[in-house]
Amino acid sequence: MQFADALNWRYAAKNMNGQAVPSTKVDAILEAIRLSASSTGIQPYEIVVVSDPVLKGKIHELACPQPQVVEGSHLLVFAAQLSVTAEHIQAYIAHMAQVRQVSLESLNGFSESLKGGLLTMSASDIKNWTARQAYIALGFGLVAAAIEEVDSCPIEGFNPAVMNELLGLNEKNLTSVVLLSLGYRDAEKDFLAKARKVRKERSELFVELA
Amino acid sequence: MQFADALNWRYAAKNMNGQAVPSTKVDAILEAIRLSASSTGIQPYEIVVVSDPVLKGKIHELACPQPQVVEGSHLLVFAAQLSVTAEHIQAYIAHMAQVRQVSLESLNGFSESLKGGLLTMSASDIKNWTARQAYIALGFGLVAAAIEEVDSCPIEGFNPAVMNELLGLNEKNLTSVVLLSLGYRDAEKDFLAKARKVRKERSELFVELA
Repeated sequence: MQFADALNWRYAAKNMNGQAVPSTKVDAILEAIRLSASSTGIQPYEIVVVSDPVLKGKIHELACPQPQVVEGSHLLVFAAQLSVTAEHIQAYIAHMAQVRQVSLESLNGFSESLKGGLLTMSASDIKNWTARQAYIALGFGLVAAAIEEVDSCPIEGFNPAVMNELLGLNEKNLTSVVLLSLGYRDAEKDFLAKARKVRKERSELFVELA
Repeated sequence: MQFADALNWRYAAKNMNGQAVPSTKVDAILEAIRLSASSTGIQPYEIVVVSDPVLKGKIHELACPQPQVVEGSHLLVFAAQLSVTAEHIQAYIAHMAQVRQVSLESLNGFSESLKGGLLTMSASDIKNWTARQAYIALGFGLVAAAIEEVDSCPIEGFNPAVMNELLGLNEKNLTSVVLLSLGYRDAEKDFLAKARKVRKERSELFVELA
């Protein structure tokens, strides 16, 4: 679908019809998320992709009662790092050296600036910062789903403690910050499927200083 | 540009060449930001679009020394609300009633659920929540710029207090949370223009529970 059309077609589907999103489309959406921007490029999050009906059922029962969890075929759980350590930075730098075929030494300046910036932040600042990076990736995922003509719904209304427990995120020092359900709208059940999109007018949203 | 190609072409341009982004392309990027998803749909932010060279110069001098501020033609300042009030909710509901041609009464349930959710949050929770919504919009803007073959750079490294002062955001109970510079890459000056993109491998970023 054309970009502008896709953005207008997209909405937060409140009911889905159970039809499975083909793996090629899921792959395209995940690839967009993988290519998302993040501050310093460090991608301080993981994304759990849940398609197992039993696990989706458990999540629906215990952590998130919204119907899209089980009516969608894939549930993406954006899990942000609770800390950024020297090891994370080293791993990122080592990967960069390998991908760009440059020496570790040539990246010393960048590495030191990362350490100076990230290792001095408070635990709560880090948590907010990693969550914000995950939200950029959520934005990329939402757009990609629309381009693929896949319906989606971002979900903040869930119990992160229970979700973390169900997905083993505590052990990885991650916490779930937002969900993205993928599937196909149930236009019969979901009155919002036919509702006009409500957005601030341009003059309300933007202040243009030219 | 095709979607996947655009995402691969996109990078955070560290130097731009001063060429102005045509207004039709800026408009398309702003429209994507306007169509961004936000939790409950309330869009708890404004975006200041700065193209005035004098003001960009001041921002560069006082709030953000990064060269893209002056080398790009447009600087988008994402300014998140510091509070969500009953008046904000009423305005949103009134706008929704008008756009969808429904009665205010028919939106009472939605209105009450917004009030129950948003008016009970602490000041710091609201601030983090509005910022996260702005970051989704940043994601939409980044993708839209790439589709338009416009270079961009998201910027967190700036002084929000000075930025708020320069743009009169305090009076509006807004705070600047992230910037997006728009322009065209200076491939001579910016070695990153030719560098390979570094991203986590799929197996590192995604945990697939099928």
